[in-house]
Amino acid sequence: MPRVNNMIMPRVDDMRYAKIDLPVAQVRRYLEPGPIVLVSSAWRGERNIMTMGWHTVMEFTPALVGCVIAAGNHSFELIRRSRECVINLPTVDLTDAAVGIGNCCGAEIDKFAKFALTAAPARNVKAPLIAECHANFECKLKDDALVERYNFFIFEVVKAHVARRPKYPRTLHYTGDGVFMVSGKIISRRGKFRPDML
Amino acid sequence: MPRVNNMIMPRVDDMRYAKIDLPVAQVRRYLEPGPIVLVSSAWRGERNIMTMGWHTVMEFTPALVGCVIAAGNHSFELIRRSRECVINLPTVDLTDAAVGIGNCCGAEIDKFAKFALTAAPARNVKAPLIAECHANFECKLKDDALVERYNFFIFEVVKAHVARRPKYPRTLHYTGDGVFMVSGKIISRRGKFRPDML
Repeated sequence: MPRVNNMIMPRVDDMRYAKIDLPVAQVRRYLEPGPIVLVSSAWRGERNIMTMGWHTVMEFTPALVGCVIAAGNHSFELIRRSRECVINLPTVDLTDAAVGIGNCCGAEIDKFAKFALTAAPARNVKAPLIAECHANFECKLKDDALVERYNFFIFEVVKAHVARRPKYPRTLHYTGDGVFMVSGKIISRRGKFRPDML
Repeated sequence: MPRVNNMIMPRVDDMRYAKIDLPVAQVRRYLEPGPIVLVSSAWRGERNIMTMGWHTVMEFTPALVGCVIAAGNHSFELIRRSRECVINLPTVDLTDAAVGIGNCCGAEIDKFAKFALTAAPARNVKAPLIAECHANFECKLKDDALVERYNFFIFEVVKAHVARRPKYPRTLHYTGDGVFMVSGKIISRRGKFRPDML
């Protein structure tokens, strides 16, 4: 159960999804397909969650992810000041939470409480993991060169927690206008790749 | 049929997909869900195609898309010099072409010919559209500040051509290791969005 100030933080292993450590160079497995994600942050006793769809993997090692976080978001200041966040991967069962989080403001309410999400402690950052998400990527701000011009943050994923199963989670991919595409069929063309291209 | 030097360029309207103009501020509709795309480029009589998965929408107006194009790609130099490209959206019927394009080098072969793709003239850039793709976004390089450090190009989409149907194309989303997720079910939560958040 979330508590706003005196957070009770259960271990992530106790949560609904038993998670394993993923080598951070492999986060593309989850982020390259373009799912919307929930970004959690914390700064001086405040915490927040935002829904984000504008992000891209930028490098394997260091594991870099570039994200647009608009300056109007309450999370913008928490992340800019703490220089940390967690990128959490929600699945289709969290659709209404993801939509709700994206349509209210964290300056007024505690989104963990409002959407019944569990804040679990991260290993290397102070921002909380969202336990109900399929995967959680702990991030430190690597480069803010384009924050002023484009609200573009480059994060290094320093720790990745992913659920053991399902192997291919049913993720949400926003297409604008209130409409989401849910991840579908999995097809392999592994045999047609050069080994160095996998 | 593609010709390498004296390109025969059919009008894009003649192609398999009849296309309409899309206001460029709406390209997120196609790119935010994270599909792999085919990037076509041209420079001084050479042309090429690469498969790309590391991109994100960055702004509605101007319509900005950020992309990682590794310096090792033959396309890198064509794009860096011409400061233009076309981002083409392939669908599941082009899976083997997309994989093949990503696993061979354009310095040695003409990929339009090898993969039986049709180069059609763009409106505002010299790089060709790939007619068989569901959508084509003509791009001009807007900002190369992070090209040296991260191979990260920020393009402005200056013209967008999209097929009238299907409304939700079956796109390919790479998850690494030779495995793709194909776009699945469409769900709407439009009623739960604040109008300014759509």
